Amino acid sequence: MPAIDPDRLLSDLRHLRSIGAQGRGVVRPAFSPKDMEARRWLKDRYEAAGLEAAIDGVGNVLGRSRRPGRALLVGSHSDTQPTGGWLDGALGVIYALEVVRALAADRETRALPVDAVSFQDEESRFVGCLGSRSLTGTLSTEVEKAAVDNGGVTLADALREAGLADAPRLRLSRERYAGFVEAHIEQGPDLEDSNRKIGVVTGIVGLRAVRFTFRGQQNHAGTTMMARRRDASTALYELAHRINQEFPKVAGPRSVWTMGRLRVEPNAASIVPGYADMDLQFRDASEAPLDAFEKVVARLVAEMNARGGIVIEAVPSRTPIPPTMMDADLQEHIARAAERHAPGKWQHMPSGAFHDAGFISASLPSAMLFIPSIGGISHDFAEDSRDEDIVLGCQVLADAAASILNEANTAR
Amino acid sequence: MPAIDPDRLLSDLRHLRSIGAQGRGVVRPAFSPKDMEARRWLKDRYEAAGLEAAIDGVGNVLGRSRRPGRALLVGSHSDTQPTGGWLDGALGVIYALEVVRALAADRETRALPVDAVSFQDEESRFVGCLGSRSLTGTLSTEVEKAAVDNGGVTLADALREAGLADAPRLRLSRERYAGFVEAHIEQGPDLEDSNRKIGVVTGIVGLRAVRFTFRGQQNHAGTTMMARRRDASTALYELAHRINQEFPKVAGPRSVWTMGRLRVEPNAASIVPGYADMDLQFRDASEAPLDAFEKVVARLVAEMNARGGIVIEAVPSRTPIPPTMMDADLQEHIARAAERHAPGKWQHMPSGAFHDAGFISASLPSAMLFIPSIGGISHDFAEDSRDEDIVLGCQVLADAAASILNEANTAR
Repeated sequence: MPAIDPDRLLSDLRHLRSIGAQGRGVVRPAFSPKDMEARRWLKDRYEAAGLEAAIDGVGNVLGRSRRPGRALLVGSHSDTQPTGGWLDGALGVIYALEVVRALAADRETRALPVDAVSFQDEESRFVGCLGSRSLTGTLSTEVEKAAVDNGGVTLADALREAGLADAPRLRLSRERYAGFVEAHIEQGPDLEDSNRKIGVVTGIVGLRAVRFTFRGQQNHAGTTMMARRRDASTALYELAHRINQEFPKVAGPRSVWTMGRLRVEPNAASIVPGYADMDLQFRDASEAPLDAFEKVVARLVAEMNARGGIVIEAVPSRTPIPPTMMDADLQEHIARAAERHAPGKWQHMPSGAFHDAGFISASLPSAMLFIPSIGGISHDFAEDSRDEDIVLGCQVLADAAASILNEANTAR
Repeated sequence: MPAIDPDRLLSDLRHLRSIGAQGRGVVRPAFSPKDMEARRWLKDRYEAAGLEAAIDGVGNVLGRSRRPGRALLVGSHSDTQPTGGWLDGALGVIYALEVVRALAADRETRALPVDAVSFQDEESRFVGCLGSRSLTGTLSTEVEKAAVDNGGVTLADALREAGLADAPRLRLSRERYAGFVEAHIEQGPDLEDSNRKIGVVTGIVGLRAVRFTFRGQQNHAGTTMMARRRDASTALYELAHRINQEFPKVAGPRSVWTMGRLRVEPNAASIVPGYADMDLQFRDASEAPLDAFEKVVARLVAEMNARGGIVIEAVPSRTPIPPTMMDADLQEHIARAAERHAPGKWQHMPSGAFHDAGFISASLPSAMLFIPSIGGISHDFAEDSRDEDIVLGCQVLADAAASILNEANTAR
């Protein structure tokens, strides 16, 4: 079995953390100077590990093994949220580097081809999972042309500024790969709560989103009698509260829904709001609860619109993400490795957050491995995991990678 | 009976409109260069009408009659909302000027002393009703020191910049005045709906305001299961909707309540909000419904806090304004004048909006007269009234002023 080097692993993780570090967190959004600095450093690290490395035309860093045979793609993303944690994405990227090195250092596994990747813009500065979409040929020209960040910078300008405008864009070859494995922090509390060390991801939950608009009539809050009002905020409060009451009746055990963004205009204490809008998103690992939620929304909106006064519109606010199943065979390899290194301390679980593996799974058999997040905290400077959990996760991944590649490269 | 001059009235109203005009509206917030220009123009107009005029240390323009005897104070405010209508405040200010001129031009009324006033900052750039508070000695040093506008400018800086830092502050003498009358647009639709031309205000509704804060735990909207969430927005939606369901059960026929300002943090579709706040305000012409609303709020908050999860706090967000009664005798003078000029087309009504008369009434017998607002629209560029209604309202006011002063200056 290949043995990873814990010190080397942690040292590289900390070096990556230092690029864009702010306090305990990291600020390294896609295409920022710090992000590009991290990608150039990764490319050098890949080369030092014997891979043939390149930064492609959308910023993906891909390191290809020079070994013949079917390869395993391992990796995640090194861009961060605007105020991100140090492990989200970075963990899986450095794991891949360490797996390459660990397999290369072991006599029994040194012939096995492992490719390492750091995808670009998983965190949606321009387009969520830009890099994995581009690598799988599912980045449309329209989406790319429309891509602008919150500050009004276009993707095209960001690519030019990062020096990538003329770099070739890579595509993943289905023939080359036996599959893809992405390791990630859990970003939730389940592993910690159950005192488990490894999560073997069964699937990535699907997500649908609705934007509600509420149109009424702005008025003076002192002189407009209640019977005459068409208060957009009143309708927003009612619909949101009723959704929170109705959804549990049709929800699955792991369904989640959130109405975390809203706007009321003009948002003044003494003015009856004439306009409001609100985003609802809901997620589940299967389609049935998502369909049921949509029906509840349609019924509530129709019922409230039938009363008159406020006009409510509900439109999908993003392309739905269908639930994605992880490859059963790859899951089995990871589960066996987890049982070897953490007997009884691992579990199957869905991923509530989206990941590049969701896009890659349309092209390659894909799987994911989770390690515990302290307090379940993520997308926050406070995000962290215990060193021993980080080391254990990488060892499991290295073991699983060897096992997957041994099977893939053995005549059946 | 004194006769007003409709052309002179409308011409002066339009001149005032031109100072700070933007489209159909006016932008003349307190102490802005346009506001001060308007005040200097008013002072000149007062002097041309024979008054002894001054701009005082908080920006009030006060024009005092040189006639002996008990005087009537007439006026309103000439500052506007950040994007205000052309009549709000300005109407009552120019009415006062015209009433002074009309009475002075009539042999029977020329000896009657009428003072004209334009209060400063009724619209709360720094302190709502700053001018009438200062004139009645109810502007505390603490309130004044804490006064900052939305852009971070302090009241002290604004006074200095307007050249008022060393101007003396005036006080209203209770001995001098028989009372105060303020004319204003209705800012609501009741007069128009009932095809009436004059509203005789019975009282100004009281107002109380509560700020709710909701403290939960910010989390990832994909990985945090519903049972574990402490979603501040969920509590906000529930409390707001339940207030809207419970208040009607204890409301008076003209009670109003509004939750038109709120904030959810970080206000992102994919993040469970950890913090939210919301303002509730409620108004009624009597204290009983206001007390009842406070009890409902306390009960709902206690009930929701007992569940745990989200911590809700409810604190008064402003000094309550008690309901104010207008002086019955002054109301009677206005009602008689209204009946003479618009027989059957006037009504008694409360004011749902607050006005300087609310503060002045603590020192002097006070009354208000409303004219119709087209569509009930106010605090908006679209605010307007019909010329014939504007002219009629001023004639009623002149008549009522003469009647009030004749009575006040007749030995009983």
